[in-house]
Amino acid sequence: MKVDILTLFPDMFTGVFESSILKRAQEVGAFKYNLVDFRDYTIDKHRKVDDYPYGGGAGMVLKPQPIFDAVDDLVQQDESKPRIILMCPQGETFNQRKAEELAQEDHLILICGHYEGYDERIREHLVTDEISIGDYVLTGGELGAMVVTDSIVRLQSDVLGNQDSAAHDSFSNQLLEHPHYTRPHNFRDMTVPEVLTSGNHQKIEDWRTYQSLKRTYIRRPDLLEQITLSDEQQQMLEDIKVNHDVATEG
Amino acid sequence: MKVDILTLFPDMFTGVFESSILKRAQEVGAFKYNLVDFRDYTIDKHRKVDDYPYGGGAGMVLKPQPIFDAVDDLVQQDESKPRIILMCPQGETFNQRKAEELAQEDHLILICGHYEGYDERIREHLVTDEISIGDYVLTGGELGAMVVTDSIVRLQSDVLGNQDSAAHDSFSNQLLEHPHYTRPHNFRDMTVPEVLTSGNHQKIEDWRTYQSLKRTYIRRPDLLEQITLSDEQQQMLEDIKVNHDVATEG
Repeated sequence: MKVDILTLFPDMFTGVFESSILKRAQEVGAFKYNLVDFRDYTIDKHRKVDDYPYGGGAGMVLKPQPIFDAVDDLVQQDESKPRIILMCPQGETFNQRKAEELAQEDHLILICGHYEGYDERIREHLVTDEISIGDYVLTGGELGAMVVTDSIVRLQSDVLGNQDSAAHDSFSNQLLEHPHYTRPHNFRDMTVPEVLTSGNHQKIEDWRTYQSLKRTYIRRPDLLEQITLSDEQQQMLEDIKVNHDVATEG
Repeated sequence: MKVDILTLFPDMFTGVFESSILKRAQEVGAFKYNLVDFRDYTIDKHRKVDDYPYGGGAGMVLKPQPIFDAVDDLVQQDESKPRIILMCPQGETFNQRKAEELAQEDHLILICGHYEGYDERIREHLVTDEISIGDYVLTGGELGAMVVTDSIVRLQSDVLGNQDSAAHDSFSNQLLEHPHYTRPHNFRDMTVPEVLTSGNHQKIEDWRTYQSLKRTYIRRPDLLEQITLSDEQQQMLEDIKVNHDVATEG
């Protein structure tokens, strides 16, 4: 998978893209990136990427010309038909389903603005997707582009060491993960739940499912509406509801 | 504001923290950060931060001892009572309200795991908050910590050049931003809406409010449920609903 990133701050990316899984993905040939400073596509002598908004108001707006020209250039260099993604607060909220969808693509172009609006013609006539990584305001689209890249590159085959890892993630099956414990058994008088050292695999599996359902019910009941539970899970959930409601009434 | 970050990958942060607004915030004395590799707090000769999970299963689990000891050390160095925040998929979903709340604090400690679970005792007995930046899986908590830091540091006073900028953000008033346009007026035969060059400020203001409501209604109707509209906005919204429903039926 190839990811082109249009940004005015290419130096922001190196630390993240050259570490850990993103580094390993490049070594196994599953990921290639290209940082494009779209200021290089300006055609005026001051190399201005932004200008005042029509209609007045605070702030500046990114001009259409450098971004259109940069994208044209990247598309022409490549035979593929890339998805062209605008990172912006007005976009579709990113989630694991979208990550899985984008992970199928061969070539993405991510466009990052920086504390300014985009000229609307970029949104209407150039991009194929608009993505927001959440309901909070960031200085620019760069962190969003790193988040999107990380989440989709780790889904490429041969990237994660253990093939199980991606399948067991929170969100990929829509339940939050159960609690984990490791050594020491007693740390500052806090001990591991007995069931986990019982050696009874069925009991451990049931405890984990119960804890996973309970955590999801308490913290993110919205996720439960999106999945189909087995009969056994459904029964556990009823039990959790009764116990939790009694506990919170008391 | 001081932010301590516990991570096994301190090199990931430099490019982001030494650019743009986060750099400027340090220059004006509004932000200080400290990257702590919690492997330095291990006490065994192999410097192991993780171990196998009790009860079996795939993957490794971050041990409690190095993280507890690192946090103890940071809290003792400082007279303040920091918020201690675990970056994890099971956490509260981060949003602008949470950013505004955390922006009031003097000292935060952010804990980043990396493709592994945390020992549950960290969650239950050490941290004050658990945060997830969205419903997608990332390789580690590092990008989340950068997102949280960026979103709260830009809210500190004297950090953004234009005091208006933070108040006009999408999400801070819960409506998505209206479209922006800048020069040229005609770009590849795509032109700017006439109203914006009319010079009629009231008309421009009304157009922007209408577009902002329309975009929010179409893309993020959930945001409309969270705010109180003025009578005029309410009337605009009724008009938008009628026109949009007719358009989509056709």
